[in-house]
Amino acid sequence: MGLVVQKYGGSSVGTAERIKRVAERIVATRKDGHDVVVVVSAMGDTTDELMDLAQQVSPSPPARELDMLLTSGERISNALVAMAISALGAEARSFTGSQAGVITDSTHGRARIIDVTPGRIRSALDEGNIALVAGFQGVSQDTKDITTLGRGGSDTTAVALAAALHADVCEIYTDVDGVFTADPRIVPNAAKLDTITYEEMLEMAASGAKVLMLRCVEYARRYGVPVRVRSSYNDLNGTLVQGSMEDIPVESALITGVAHERGEAKVTIAGVADHPGVAAKIFRTIADAEIDIDMVVQNISKAVDGKTDITFTLPKGDGPRAVAALESRRGEIDFESIVYNDHIGKVSLVGAGMRSHPGVTATFCEALAAAGVNIDIISTSEIRISVLVRDVELDTAVRALHDAFELGGDEEAVVYAGTGR
Amino acid sequence: MGLVVQKYGGSSVGTAERIKRVAERIVATRKDGHDVVVVVSAMGDTTDELMDLAQQVSPSPPARELDMLLTSGERISNALVAMAISALGAEARSFTGSQAGVITDSTHGRARIIDVTPGRIRSALDEGNIALVAGFQGVSQDTKDITTLGRGGSDTTAVALAAALHADVCEIYTDVDGVFTADPRIVPNAAKLDTITYEEMLEMAASGAKVLMLRCVEYARRYGVPVRVRSSYNDLNGTLVQGSMEDIPVESALITGVAHERGEAKVTIAGVADHPGVAAKIFRTIADAEIDIDMVVQNISKAVDGKTDITFTLPKGDGPRAVAALESRRGEIDFESIVYNDHIGKVSLVGAGMRSHPGVTATFCEALAAAGVNIDIISTSEIRISVLVRDVELDTAVRALHDAFELGGDEEAVVYAGTGR
Repeated sequence: MGLVVQKYGGSSVGTAERIKRVAERIVATRKDGHDVVVVVSAMGDTTDELMDLAQQVSPSPPARELDMLLTSGERISNALVAMAISALGAEARSFTGSQAGVITDSTHGRARIIDVTPGRIRSALDEGNIALVAGFQGVSQDTKDITTLGRGGSDTTAVALAAALHADVCEIYTDVDGVFTADPRIVPNAAKLDTITYEEMLEMAASGAKVLMLRCVEYARRYGVPVRVRSSYNDLNGTLVQGSMEDIPVESALITGVAHERGEAKVTIAGVADHPGVAAKIFRTIADAEIDIDMVVQNISKAVDGKTDITFTLPKGDGPRAVAALESRRGEIDFESIVYNDHIGKVSLVGAGMRSHPGVTATFCEALAAAGVNIDIISTSEIRISVLVRDVELDTAVRALHDAFELGGDEEAVVYAGTGR
Repeated sequence: MGLVVQKYGGSSVGTAERIKRVAERIVATRKDGHDVVVVVSAMGDTTDELMDLAQQVSPSPPARELDMLLTSGERISNALVAMAISALGAEARSFTGSQAGVITDSTHGRARIIDVTPGRIRSALDEGNIALVAGFQGVSQDTKDITTLGRGGSDTTAVALAAALHADVCEIYTDVDGVFTADPRIVPNAAKLDTITYEEMLEMAASGAKVLMLRCVEYARRYGVPVRVRSSYNDLNGTLVQGSMEDIPVESALITGVAHERGEAKVTIAGVADHPGVAAKIFRTIADAEIDIDMVVQNISKAVDGKTDITFTLPKGDGPRAVAALESRRGEIDFESIVYNDHIGKVSLVGAGMRSHPGVTATFCEALAAAGVNIDIISTSEIRISVLVRDVELDTAVRALHDAFELGGDEEAVVYAGTGR
């Protein structure tokens, strides 16, 4: 008998009917002989509705109170699921993040988990209960206030509990069948992956794949928690996120998938002097504005005037603020101009296989060229190639790469092993 | 500078607009220089809506989970009021019953307060904050589970906090202007009382007056907390509940008001043997069914057969169960028949003055007779006379008594001092 942690998102528990279906699945897992811990998000649009109420009474709600408000949503859904489980004859108890021992820092709205001490959960399990834990929340170690964990918080709660309880697996239930080689809405013959390594999933998530949040995958990787992403609407096996690419034999390494991101904009600071400290000033300015940066590209300076351009990408919503912050420090940073472009898309190829197959970059660029897609900037990591393209060409680029690396259908994509291309 | 505890009910915070109005009143109180603690009920019909959701997923929800679910309502409203206060430029922090130190027993759904240790509230006040506390809830001393306090729980929370914090007053905000000499919907010239003693308010509440719950008044009396009942829709002073009738000079004692109760039924167990133990068996049977009893009347036994009748009243909803419980023990209790009547009304006259004025009972009965109202049974306490009448005659009885004791309009009711009537 093992221990299974399951996480259900808001749409999975959006109505009383859905809640009862989820309860049946949970009880079935228990009947298979496992200890079961379940993390549930707030029902449907509850979080958005609560945010809306908050905006009605205050244009700028204090972060502490926003957390007190929003955490009610998870409390409601977890209690209801526990009730539905009881109605099926099994024993269940619901707990808040605080009661479950999820300890965080005091950054309201996007708290970091410091520790998980699930003593009460363990006791409840030992007494034969199914334990429900409100996701997306914890308690601040310093202030003892309730905190929320930010986007993807419920997934992170589930993985963190799975790690602390030494669970055999953490099952993330969602409304898609698993992790795909590309977004099936863009690529109709995208294939569902049976497995994917932690590093590749990290790159997919960082590159725009929305099925799992980056922090949740990183937590799983650090503690070695196997994560299964599957649908709450059927019994398919989904995708198992497990293992390190270091454990994959070199010749077997594959190209795993194509991710895309539409929500970014590009900022180019043109004509900066190419000497130490300039980049530091630029990125400190952005950091002070609490803006996260994704890609950064700087090319060699022009021999003529010793100046260069620095380009970075960021979420579109933060674009205007970033430009304003840089403009306000024009005197110190000394640049010629700022070019802002929010009609970009990012497409990324991910796969452990590209470490050992040098021809991948060439195939990548050829595929895009053949599709008539112009590459704006390129940025790579050990297992990922990302490019920025015009946003209207994003879908074309995704499909072109997916085809070029034969990721679709029943066949697993295989890099041309042994050909050195 | 004093400390004021305010309590706002569900309709007072039913919408975002109402919440902002309440926040203005709270901030105004703070600006007058007081420390302010506010207890807020759940918004509008939230509690009923949550109960409905619970019923949809489980016909018989476990009590612990029901408390986890229902307490979300108060959490939401208190966080929203705190936000609204912040938007007005004042500092506010919301707390759950648990965080506020409301310690209870573990009877989910109707927990009793064991202790109140409001250390975090005191600290928040000392830091200049207005403290919001979720009403209707606490934490179990034994299990550390969240509990709800049952009907009137938010009023009780407010009075309990006022006692523990040594507040100068506990203001209960509601949708009526205060405590009246009778229900203004029955008696158009009912007068609002400026003050009322604890004992008289207890009798009014026990006799059907709905403005304050019995347990809240009893808690206030025991700890000497002045309670002001006033409207959240205007700035009128309301009614101050304070003081003991022992402190009222005998000659000044008054008749205070007329209360009525429509929700009771009457059970008469006819032809029981008049010897020790019979009443005990009857009332143990009722208590085992967890039914609360109000009036009890037993008259002398008939000389002929040594039998008597025992009559009691109880909430209408419990009537059928009580009758069934008694019937099921017919062999042991040995009675001739059970008569059940749910077409009764109870009307009560309350006033410290009746202790020292023996003519009150006569005036009472004469007033009802003159109005053509037949008295079914009479039951009295030191400061209350209650009778059961036919439900269709209840309003007539209330008005007749209110007029006979001149309780209406601008004049305070005066018992015929010195005439001995």
